[in-house]
Amino acid sequence: MTTAQILQVALAERSYPIHIGEGLLDDPALFAPHVVAGRAAVVTDSNVAPLYLARVRRALEAGGTQVVAIVVPAGEDSKSWQTLDRVFDELLAARCDRETLVVALGGGVVGDLAGFAAAVYQRGVPFVQVPTTLLAQVDSSVGGKTAINHARGKNMIGAFYQPRAVIADVAALRTLPERELRAGLAEVIKHGLILDEPFTSWLEENIGRLLKRDADALSHAVRRCCEIKAQVVAADERESGVRALLNFGHTFGHAIETGQGYGSWLHGEAVAAGMIMAAELSVRAGMLSAADLRRVQGLVERAGLPVEGPAMALERYLELMAVDKKAARGRVRFVLLESIGRARVRGDLDDAWVRASIASHSPKPA
Amino acid sequence: MTTAQILQVALAERSYPIHIGEGLLDDPALFAPHVVAGRAAVVTDSNVAPLYLARVRRALEAGGTQVVAIVVPAGEDSKSWQTLDRVFDELLAARCDRETLVVALGGGVVGDLAGFAAAVYQRGVPFVQVPTTLLAQVDSSVGGKTAINHARGKNMIGAFYQPRAVIADVAALRTLPERELRAGLAEVIKHGLILDEPFTSWLEENIGRLLKRDADALSHAVRRCCEIKAQVVAADERESGVRALLNFGHTFGHAIETGQGYGSWLHGEAVAAGMIMAAELSVRAGMLSAADLRRVQGLVERAGLPVEGPAMALERYLELMAVDKKAARGRVRFVLLESIGRARVRGDLDDAWVRASIASHSPKPA
Repeated sequence: MTTAQILQVALAERSYPIHIGEGLLDDPALFAPHVVAGRAAVVTDSNVAPLYLARVRRALEAGGTQVVAIVVPAGEDSKSWQTLDRVFDELLAARCDRETLVVALGGGVVGDLAGFAAAVYQRGVPFVQVPTTLLAQVDSSVGGKTAINHARGKNMIGAFYQPRAVIADVAALRTLPERELRAGLAEVIKHGLILDEPFTSWLEENIGRLLKRDADALSHAVRRCCEIKAQVVAADERESGVRALLNFGHTFGHAIETGQGYGSWLHGEAVAAGMIMAAELSVRAGMLSAADLRRVQGLVERAGLPVEGPAMALERYLELMAVDKKAARGRVRFVLLESIGRARVRGDLDDAWVRASIASHSPKPA
Repeated sequence: MTTAQILQVALAERSYPIHIGEGLLDDPALFAPHVVAGRAAVVTDSNVAPLYLARVRRALEAGGTQVVAIVVPAGEDSKSWQTLDRVFDELLAARCDRETLVVALGGGVVGDLAGFAAAVYQRGVPFVQVPTTLLAQVDSSVGGKTAINHARGKNMIGAFYQPRAVIADVAALRTLPERELRAGLAEVIKHGLILDEPFTSWLEENIGRLLKRDADALSHAVRRCCEIKAQVVAADERESGVRALLNFGHTFGHAIETGQGYGSWLHGEAVAAGMIMAAELSVRAGMLSAADLRRVQGLVERAGLPVEGPAMALERYLELMAVDKKAARGRVRFVLLESIGRARVRGDLDDAWVRASIASHSPKPA
């Protein structure tokens, strides 16, 4: 067993700890400080419930907490108003009041859904993230971004709402489907590419261990990503500056997810192809070297992730990117690389470069 | 014309001004500081749009702002997910980004709906309240509470989200239907009863002038209520303490609104009857004198407001009150009066007193 580690997200009175280690998700001591009124609602999905719900329930009940379990269907489709309303309905039916602790047990979808539910149920109740996927552990559970999707765009409705704690149990990654492990690695790679060249080098050396789910390697990767993300979030909680760098690959990625229908490409897969396009755009904008672009491609490929977007008309890509919520004053802004480990936001890019970057890394539609 | 006055809601970096006066709602100078990206979405309803939308639009356009107007049906039914989703749909169709200013032009329903839309659209965009009803000017536009209703309870889904400014034009009250003017007076009276005996005395002397819409009297009442509310909100933004006092009459009132179907009783009417029940409960709890109860009843009656709740089974009242979101740890808490101008929260009340307070001030159901 690796030693449990605690990082702190420094946000003044909303600061919170991230616990990282093996066997944490049924440790009563990690939950107890966050239960206010003797009641908790655990929101999870149909994949995770059979694996971990009973253990989390026991950990809460050990402290005398009364537990309501709310199980939603697994998959991106649950990031919808319909599912959110079902969560509200079950919370209200169980007479959960504004001091009830919401526990998000699962991957990014559950974290986003349950986090947003906690943000707006009775104008906000306390919540704790218990991420069980690599994507959620390295990215979505930290930083307080919560959201559901809208027919016109991903994550369009949501809130910045910080958890009281994040409990990341790397032992839970043993049950993660292979495809989701890889999708999570896309966000791991992203953290290295935008802010940490030495971590990128470490990934190049250790990608094989990560794919084999070596616990030490996973713990190291989760911890380093959380450190990077916690620093970025502490510096810029509401994404007015440096936090935007975390969206590297996401403008193209969201277009892929939305255009293909949420869920047919996993978020990490779309981000992987999106990072290639963004790196290509960085080269075309004269910022990144061709050698560094090849390094990005090589690492993404070795992680078993797509290095090409789907076959979709160029105009469709552009249309979907224009409503991406990172658009400012009607112009699409891109996160680009200056080198491995150094990123910058640019809003002044030649349209032709954007088109060429998509076209070079996606098949022509039939 | 009365002189425009500015109060400040002191909330550190989220502090904002409340402008009170005549002829403010088309003053370009009041809007200009809050437009970030040259774009604003004015959310209003089908009653207010014909009266004031063109003027607000002109005031914004005078500063070069591009305006999208979103008109929802008037009435409490618009505090629904369906209407909220329509607002999101129109914002997205117009490609409003996260810097778009949302302007809430209307009464409490529009303020709550548009404020919540602003709180969660793309995880939060700036917004300005332009309240056009007495209820909204003295109460709902100040303090950052926003919400929509759920089938199981009123205001169950929402956010604490502060506006950048409140622009309260008392001239707009001239077009207010009589019934809504009276409903607004319920909240005016509430502010006096819980925190300001001298203001209550002023109301007893000036209720006739208010009902005749005397501009000076209305300005005074709006200003005094905003002062009281701004102080309370600054001391306790998220309702963990003193802010709960503003819910005087609301636990009973919400039961009335929910039990009768939202909109059949106006919010202020339900609060009026609710304040009588809460005052009765204060007497039964040994806190308030019978003479003070008569003063409360007299003032509510002279404002043309109901002093009785609807004929609804006692059990139904109790059931609806138990899910009221102010319940803590499963117990219903009540705001009670110690005297006129002094209120206190109690969570330890004899059930029989609660029943008797409802029964004494509502007709037996047939």
